[in-house]
Amino acid sequence: MTMPNELDASIAAEQIRCGKLTSEALVGACLARIDARERDVGAWQYLAREQALAQARESDRGAPRGPLAGVPIAVKDLFDTFDMPTGLGSPIYVDRRPGWDAACVAAARAAGAIVLGKTVTTEFASFEPGKTRNPHDPARTPGGSSSGSAAAVADCMAPLAFGTQTAASITRPAAFCGVAGYKATFGELALSGVRPLAHSLDTLGIFARSIADIALMRSVVLGESPRPLVGPASPPRLGLCRTPMWPAAEAPARAALDLAVERVRAAGAIVDEIELPAQFAALTQAQQTIMTYETARNYVFEATRRAERLSASFRAICEAGLRIDRAAYLAARRQVAEAMRMLTDAMQGCAALITPATRGEAPPLEGGTGDPVMSRMWTALGTPTLALPVPRAAGALPVAVQLVADRHADPLLLEVGEWVMRALGEGARRRA
Amino acid sequence: MTMPNELDASIAAEQIRCGKLTSEALVGACLARIDARERDVGAWQYLAREQALAQARESDRGAPRGPLAGVPIAVKDLFDTFDMPTGLGSPIYVDRRPGWDAACVAAARAAGAIVLGKTVTTEFASFEPGKTRNPHDPARTPGGSSSGSAAAVADCMAPLAFGTQTAASITRPAAFCGVAGYKATFGELALSGVRPLAHSLDTLGIFARSIADIALMRSVVLGESPRPLVGPASPPRLGLCRTPMWPAAEAPARAALDLAVERVRAAGAIVDEIELPAQFAALTQAQQTIMTYETARNYVFEATRRAERLSASFRAICEAGLRIDRAAYLAARRQVAEAMRMLTDAMQGCAALITPATRGEAPPLEGGTGDPVMSRMWTALGTPTLALPVPRAAGALPVAVQLVADRHADPLLLEVGEWVMRALGEGARRRA
Repeated sequence: MTMPNELDASIAAEQIRCGKLTSEALVGACLARIDARERDVGAWQYLAREQALAQARESDRGAPRGPLAGVPIAVKDLFDTFDMPTGLGSPIYVDRRPGWDAACVAAARAAGAIVLGKTVTTEFASFEPGKTRNPHDPARTPGGSSSGSAAAVADCMAPLAFGTQTAASITRPAAFCGVAGYKATFGELALSGVRPLAHSLDTLGIFARSIADIALMRSVVLGESPRPLVGPASPPRLGLCRTPMWPAAEAPARAALDLAVERVRAAGAIVDEIELPAQFAALTQAQQTIMTYETARNYVFEATRRAERLSASFRAICEAGLRIDRAAYLAARRQVAEAMRMLTDAMQGCAALITPATRGEAPPLEGGTGDPVMSRMWTALGTPTLALPVPRAAGALPVAVQLVADRHADPLLLEVGEWVMRALGEGARRRA
Repeated sequence: MTMPNELDASIAAEQIRCGKLTSEALVGACLARIDARERDVGAWQYLAREQALAQARESDRGAPRGPLAGVPIAVKDLFDTFDMPTGLGSPIYVDRRPGWDAACVAAARAAGAIVLGKTVTTEFASFEPGKTRNPHDPARTPGGSSSGSAAAVADCMAPLAFGTQTAASITRPAAFCGVAGYKATFGELALSGVRPLAHSLDTLGIFARSIADIALMRSVVLGESPRPLVGPASPPRLGLCRTPMWPAAEAPARAALDLAVERVRAAGAIVDEIELPAQFAALTQAQQTIMTYETARNYVFEATRRAERLSASFRAICEAGLRIDRAAYLAARRQVAEAMRMLTDAMQGCAALITPATRGEAPPLEGGTGDPVMSRMWTALGTPTLALPVPRAAGALPVAVQLVADRHADPLLLEVGEWVMRALGEGARRRA
């Protein structure tokens, strides 16, 4: 039997609308799951238990308003919330109370969503880990920086969560935790109320256990009327893109990509091998240059006045960033801009590229939040991406593939993602 | 005799370094000017009088640290400050106390600058005016949205001020108040700690009474060692660009452009007429579409939960923005991207374009903050711009020309700006 907290958001919303489920029961089930599992997972920085239940009861009393009426969501603790602390994963800001909601949080609430609480982020969405553990294996990282958001959705503590990505902060935790993780096209989804890390790269993202839920939340953030995914009219043409980072891929990531290609081909997709132009090989380093340069210039206050409460690793990034000069930074920006201009041609008419999501399975906690190498290039290019878990044997750790579409082709990416998820078949959504 | 508050920041900093001037005397002179004039000008939202004096004395006691040691600055009340309220020009946030400094404010302070206080911004840096009046004529607007920053620098209340531009919020107040106003290349100067209005357009800017001061502050924000402006080796080649908005230019703006061209030609510059490709005519409308669409999506919290304390004009923008659909928004973004690709060629090797800064002189207060039409296109293109006051008859209102360089050519723009400012000659810096 499916427990309410295991329902997809869109299904739960529909059940609430037609009276089959109450928001109180749904929120209660999520809270019960959190009670049962939080000690092991550590997904939450702040839990608004009583407030969420009160809002659920209030939602149940009125007529359902909005496409997310009564649906609980999780919010990365990098997003401002007017009624909860927003600590950005830093001891400096533990009790920080911004006076507003981040734009996407306000949009979700206006659509009826109930914020359960704030999920653990690495320090300032950079690399210093928080307390969260992988729900599939407490000795392993959930990935970062959106660690708690991915873990909460994977563990059925919430059906939907917001995150951000500057290097690999959506794709990596989604892959490690075994949920779908969508990073929007750069600049499309508003980031008001989210502290910048590297402004040329920071992008909003959404975690869910279904593509339909991602599409629903995306519509809400954009202020559009949600439309159901219809799927591509015929099996899509996909580009198998091993990328210049392929040598870094470990056996599980290689096997996941092979399996995914086999399944989508079996379902009728045409899959062409795509070799990216040679220039793309420089993008991983370019992304790192841009990110480090901009981080140092966005965190001047903390680096000059609160340095003693920064982690050594974040301080090192700020120092390294100041040593990068503007010429090197602009050269990196030019490399990215040039590759952006080549991307549409490079995709050769494919609806999406299918590419590794991470080097492999979640590494042990001691190794930090894992290597962002499979995502840096796509973040720099500003493309929308979708991490999709691939089927795995019982007891195996999650591994994902990553779909990448052309910039601003987010609706197409989600349609293709839905199709691919179906083609991957059962096992992809195996729970923790 | 030049009073300390009339000194350029770089000259004052040099005098402080060599012991000719104390920071306390400089800050005291600025405060005395504010005392004498603030009732008429209304540049300040918050004045940190005692704190600034205490910091000045402390600065005087130690060895001068940093290139802005002891120099007072003004900060638009859109930039977060950890020790002063940041109200964003809205009654909603009058007592808002962010726990950090905006990145540029932290950088200026780390370079020794003393923040005198927060200057008036229009509501959320949009169009609803604040209390500030034009220092040259209290019946006229100072322009907006960086109204108080431009007025404070023009009135010698502070030598340097931060502002932002999303449509014309640097260029227009600089032109109306008769000071130099620099808008950086989009994305180059960090905006952490500045609430986004329209994230594809928002750009940091600096007001000063000299180009040297702008170059100095820009270096500080970038974390670079300041280098003196050396000026171009030979008179620059400039492009006289009347733009598709020329029919909107009124007689004073036309005369200012004619005079500027005459003076730079007399000083040896080659000035070619540049006709922009036809596609550029659509950019003013495209900028408006992008700005309205993004504003509505960045201000969801206020529009849904604080609507009664928004101005009618800001509420109308939020409503209009939600009615713009994504297809129209992306079409506008594409128009801009296409023009960006054409700009370098369109400039035909000119170091900078010389173009109108505003339609004309500052209009009466009843007309709001003036028409942004001469700036929208350049903001959309992300080019660096520099508003330079042109010489005027005693008693006449300020008018400016605008220099525009290619993206990321900010250092060249400032060198050319310094050269043009010299060519314009005395009268350009006439005080209020």
